[in-house]
Amino acid sequence: MVKLTQEDKEYLLSTIRAVKDFPKPGIVFRDITTLLNNKDAFKFLIDHLEEHYRDYNLDFIAGIESRGFIFGAALCARLNIPFVPIRKPHKLPYMTISQKYTLEYGVDAVELHVDAFSHVKNAKVLLIDDLIATGGTAKASVELINQTNAKCVEACFLIDLVDLKGKEEIEKLTKVYSILEV
Amino acid sequence: MVKLTQEDKEYLLSTIRAVKDFPKPGIVFRDITTLLNNKDAFKFLIDHLEEHYRDYNLDFIAGIESRGFIFGAALCARLNIPFVPIRKPHKLPYMTISQKYTLEYGVDAVELHVDAFSHVKNAKVLLIDDLIATGGTAKASVELINQTNAKCVEACFLIDLVDLKGKEEIEKLTKVYSILEV
Repeated sequence: MVKLTQEDKEYLLSTIRAVKDFPKPGIVFRDITTLLNNKDAFKFLIDHLEEHYRDYNLDFIAGIESRGFIFGAALCARLNIPFVPIRKPHKLPYMTISQKYTLEYGVDAVELHVDAFSHVKNAKVLLIDDLIATGGTAKASVELINQTNAKCVEACFLIDLVDLKGKEEIEKLTKVYSILEV
Repeated sequence: MVKLTQEDKEYLLSTIRAVKDFPKPGIVFRDITTLLNNKDAFKFLIDHLEEHYRDYNLDFIAGIESRGFIFGAALCARLNIPFVPIRKPHKLPYMTISQKYTLEYGVDAVELHVDAFSHVKNAKVLLIDDLIATGGTAKASVELINQTNAKCVEACFLIDLVDLKGKEEIEKLTKVYSILEV
């Protein structure tokens, strides 16, 4: 396990654009596309994740649709391990298991193929997404993974919106590594 | 440029699941999640893409939402180049350019941040997606990239549904590399 310095974190944060009033008035959206399209910053982040997770002996990385796909697949390509998508309802074509979670208004769900991890015994899974806010999607995703033969050994988020306390919810279920706190 | 043997292609194809009647009756859906969660197959594919694109001197890979994110980001992590997402309308938070395309019934569009490539002069971009069918999304995506200061130098698809002739449409605009023909 490798930790970033405060200077490293400030560098990465400086590459993330703050967009006001998206997706609705009053919200400051953390736009990670300016980190992704920054050659040095993207390499720095993926190098760090590779170093951090090299000795975890992970069997899979599960990424949450759709920005979690980007970080998850990039890290898979470095660690030479396979990737599993966790998607919104009705997107995965084969038989799925589903986990609901509550939003500010209403209910949503995430889905996973029933056999996503079934070919590896006691599979160790890293869950990854770009951001944790209230943690609803991430909590449902950890629960989904743990309903299978696999186990979510850690959840990784590039950005933790600390005021929303989502990380505390996820820490009841698995280890959490959040790279940047906002 | 490195070509796969027929045996290599048959191996990769054998790891892709055919799901009948998804997303609607009569359609056989090519489920690439069984390639992604297959340790050997995913590594084989990404190794091949890395070898194929190593000498292209690409500046960016643009991936089409959302399965294109997976292959695009994985290849970026190997080539140490940055990633740009092309997304469905209203998903990107900053100012975008948009390109419409026609579907069987109706119209859809893809979007790109206006400044996605603006910090690199004459940027060379690889467009990537998992599958090309009629090619509507891919054509609109190439047009989007070429509306900026950048140029789409090649479009790469894991699967080409040859009967739908989408590849021919894209070849009017850029080079195309389709790995598997179905």
